[in-house]
Amino acid sequence: MFDELKRIVYAANMDLPKYGLVTFTWGNVSAIDREKGLFVIKPSGVAYDKLTPDDMVVMDMDGKRIEGKYNPSSDTPTHLELYKAFPEIGGIVHTHSPYATAWAEAGRSIPCYGTTHADYFYGDIPCVRCLYDDEIENDYEKNTGLLIAGEFKRANKDPRAVPAVLCKNHGPFTWGKDAKQAVQNAVVIEQVARVAYMAEKINRDLEPAPQVLMDKHYNRKYGVDAYYGQS
Amino acid sequence: MFDELKRIVYAANMDLPKYGLVTFTWGNVSAIDREKGLFVIKPSGVAYDKLTPDDMVVMDMDGKRIEGKYNPSSDTPTHLELYKAFPEIGGIVHTHSPYATAWAEAGRSIPCYGTTHADYFYGDIPCVRCLYDDEIENDYEKNTGLLIAGEFKRANKDPRAVPAVLCKNHGPFTWGKDAKQAVQNAVVIEQVARVAYMAEKINRDLEPAPQVLMDKHYNRKYGVDAYYGQS
Amino acid sequence: MFDELKRIVYAANMDLPKYGLVTFTWGNVSAIDREKGLFVIKPSGVAYDKLTPDDMVVMDMDGKRIEGKYNPSSDTPTHLELYKAFPEIGGIVHTHSPYATAWAEAGRSIPCYGTTHADYFYGDIPCVRCLYDDEIENDYEKNTGLLIAGEFKRANKDPRAVPAVLCKNHGPFTWGKDAKQAVQNAVVIEQVARVAYMAEKINRDLEPAPQVLMDKHYNRKYGVDAYYGQS
Amino acid sequence: MFDELKRIVYAANMDLPKYGLVTFTWGNVSAIDREKGLFVIKPSGVAYDKLTPDDMVVMDMDGKRIEGKYNPSSDTPTHLELYKAFPEIGGIVHTHSPYATAWAEAGRSIPCYGTTHADYFYGDIPCVRCLYDDEIENDYEKNTGLLIAGEFKRANKDPRAVPAVLCKNHGPFTWGKDAKQAVQNAVVIEQVARVAYMAEKINRDLEPAPQVLMDKHYNRKYGVDAYYGQS
Repeated sequence: MFDELKRIVYAANMDLPKYGLVTFTWGNVSAIDREKGLFVIKPSGVAYDKLTPDDMVVMDMDGKRIEGKYNPSSDTPTHLELYKAFPEIGGIVHTHSPYATAWAEAGRSIPCYGTTHADYFYGDIPCVRCLYDDEIENDYEKNTGLLIAGEFKRANKDPRAVPAVLCKNHGPFTWGKDAKQAVQNAVVIEQVARVAYMAEKINRDLEPAPQVLMDKHYNRKYGVDAYYGQS
Repeated sequence: MFDELKRIVYAANMDLPKYGLVTFTWGNVSAIDREKGLFVIKPSGVAYDKLTPDDMVVMDMDGKRIEGKYNPSSDTPTHLELYKAFPEIGGIVHTHSPYATAWAEAGRSIPCYGTTHADYFYGDIPCVRCLYDDEIENDYEKNTGLLIAGEFKRANKDPRAVPAVLCKNHGPFTWGKDAKQAVQNAVVIEQVARVAYMAEKINRDLEPAPQVLMDKHYNRKYGVDAYYGQS
Repeated sequence: MFDELKRIVYAANMDLPKYGLVTFTWGNVSAIDREKGLFVIKPSGVAYDKLTPDDMVVMDMDGKRIEGKYNPSSDTPTHLELYKAFPEIGGIVHTHSPYATAWAEAGRSIPCYGTTHADYFYGDIPCVRCLYDDEIENDYEKNTGLLIAGEFKRANKDPRAVPAVLCKNHGPFTWGKDAKQAVQNAVVIEQVARVAYMAEKINRDLEPAPQVLMDKHYNRKYGVDAYYGQS
Repeated sequence: MFDELKRIVYAANMDLPKYGLVTFTWGNVSAIDREKGLFVIKPSGVAYDKLTPDDMVVMDMDGKRIEGKYNPSSDTPTHLELYKAFPEIGGIVHTHSPYATAWAEAGRSIPCYGTTHADYFYGDIPCVRCLYDDEIENDYEKNTGLLIAGEFKRANKDPRAVPAVLCKNHGPFTWGKDAKQAVQNAVVIEQVARVAYMAEKINRDLEPAPQVLMDKHYNRKYGVDAYYGQS
């Protein structure tokens, strides 16, 4: 019944090793069908070279498995909370890509140092705090999702303008209108994290790019008068 | 009518992913036909693996599209200003290659620390300032080109001797007598940026190479008594 | 007689260049048959592309060669001591993978900065001291094994919970229930070493992850109520 | 007449891009026939993918071209001086491999921080000073060779025990008993330079490995009682 979405989610998961974003099974992609109120996600701990579209797991919005012989990714409750909190997104990716994970381990938001960042993320890519002990001990993955959603609400951030977050001591989550765009943002955050890492080493007193540059590049691509690309 | 130049520009664009210089569509190459007063450039936001020679866009020196079904690269006005200011160049490349972009984000010119640099670039590879707010808000890409051209004129730099520039908060532009040489210089600036980055970490008190070494290496390859290579 | 174990050890050795962990012959994998009291290890100094399963060397627990035309790896006495000290392990790997080796050369244990580390290693990955002069001069490789075993005993570390060690001025050893898991841990320590290296550069005042996170991630995967994967 | 040596030197040159040590034409390998008093070297500035064994250039010990349609590498006078000064060597390699070049640009010798280094190089890999202005202006490449030879003599270094050198503001030269071993040492110096770079970042107060470890590892592989490998 969900063959098309399973195929899409499978293909998006297979793009993670293709883009060099994952080691072993360290990553997962999901996508949601908003009308049916169901999302499809990678199974937990299955090697990428053994995966088939049919191995994808179908979940409902109560976190119940609807279809699939495997357990869903252990990060499934995080995906679920993000889908609930961000109705405008259609796909989510989690990886441990090295540079983005290093920023997450360091507990720092990635400042916008240039147009590469500004073309995809408006302002800082925020790093949310480590969970408190009791949040870790019970419903850890669900609390991760709640923390991200709460932080975006508190800071009044639009998840379309900032389609990524870092979780302290953990790693990045990215999202997009669909699974493909979420994977694209996972590729971009790794590049942005890498270049920002090096830029800070080259100039210890580095300041973020001017606000007007951030506005310009964001609007050039996503604003009402966008003139980048063919649309 | 422009089949040959389109083919050359297409091939030069395809060299960018081959040399690992671009992610997704983040780069563009153009080449000019000085006699006809026209240049050919990559279309905006089309994936490299979908490009064909016929997708290349032909522009005139007023920035008007002469041929091609796609919009030209959003950086086209920068290319145009550089072609106007530097009559001796025949090809231009823009990338977001990681090390060169990190120097650009850091806002620092790349000092000449050794012969690898000296063989291709005479002295510093300059980093021009970030544009002012009003320069960003209107004709951003054109102003980028004017800023580069103005800085080379002000500093009396020969664009053949220093075939590259960094734009603060943005990334590198390189050029050459043709598209192929411009791509070669894009490869070299990334290597030079990488090695200079590491050299400064190994020795915090590093000074540029002596002037006579810069002169020697530049002249060995490009001077009147050049003895490098077979020419 | 040992065809199956030779085949397994051969395949595990060939995984080292596949995962980019070795240059030339700089690495070795062994696996033990506890019932027979014998282990199989790579020969010394033979290029990976010349190796065959039949080239593997069979050793007994007194360090005597039982089968094989080649000398065993020069690190064989280290493997032997680890098999004696850690009865729960079935395979051992030694590499000079760059990031793990850099931590070893630096003489620092790798702190647990995040979940990537916590999923595989409980707490610090310890770095044991450089051997004393007399320990180096006589029975160097055996003393390396004794030092590791002694340090794990002294610190009351479970080799299953911390399946890796760094040897000061030398490099990493990893182990596991079998050769395949030992190789997997060699891949992971290199990733963990890389990300920790960068995280410390991004935040100079970095503290290890909270204890409860380390407990959670370790138990999620290996505890009695493990819910990661399909088992 | 020199088909065999040309074939060997050609194959050794082709190993440089294979091992990721060169960009474009930035490297060269030579090998000497001591009996005939002739050496064979790569031509200058010819792309690796166009090279054939027949393009190799045969030189005599006065620096005169004996055979070959191309100009020899511009570094030929450096090779010649090294062959004269070090009668025990049979092959020489020059590259601009990134990490080794960064140490050369930084003007620092690479300290021995561990066994990876100690297995191939006994003690520091020295970095010789930049040439003086008049040494650069006339017979630059010959003076590079004389400087290296003079430094090894002054410091009483055995070129077999330390088969590499860094030239300040330039890059590494390595050598060996033949072209193949010289290439191997070019691979190893890049690895050693990389790991030492990172080790110094991980521990700012890093000291070289103890002398007895350097002695042990060097002798284990090259000493009279060598027990590494199959010989």
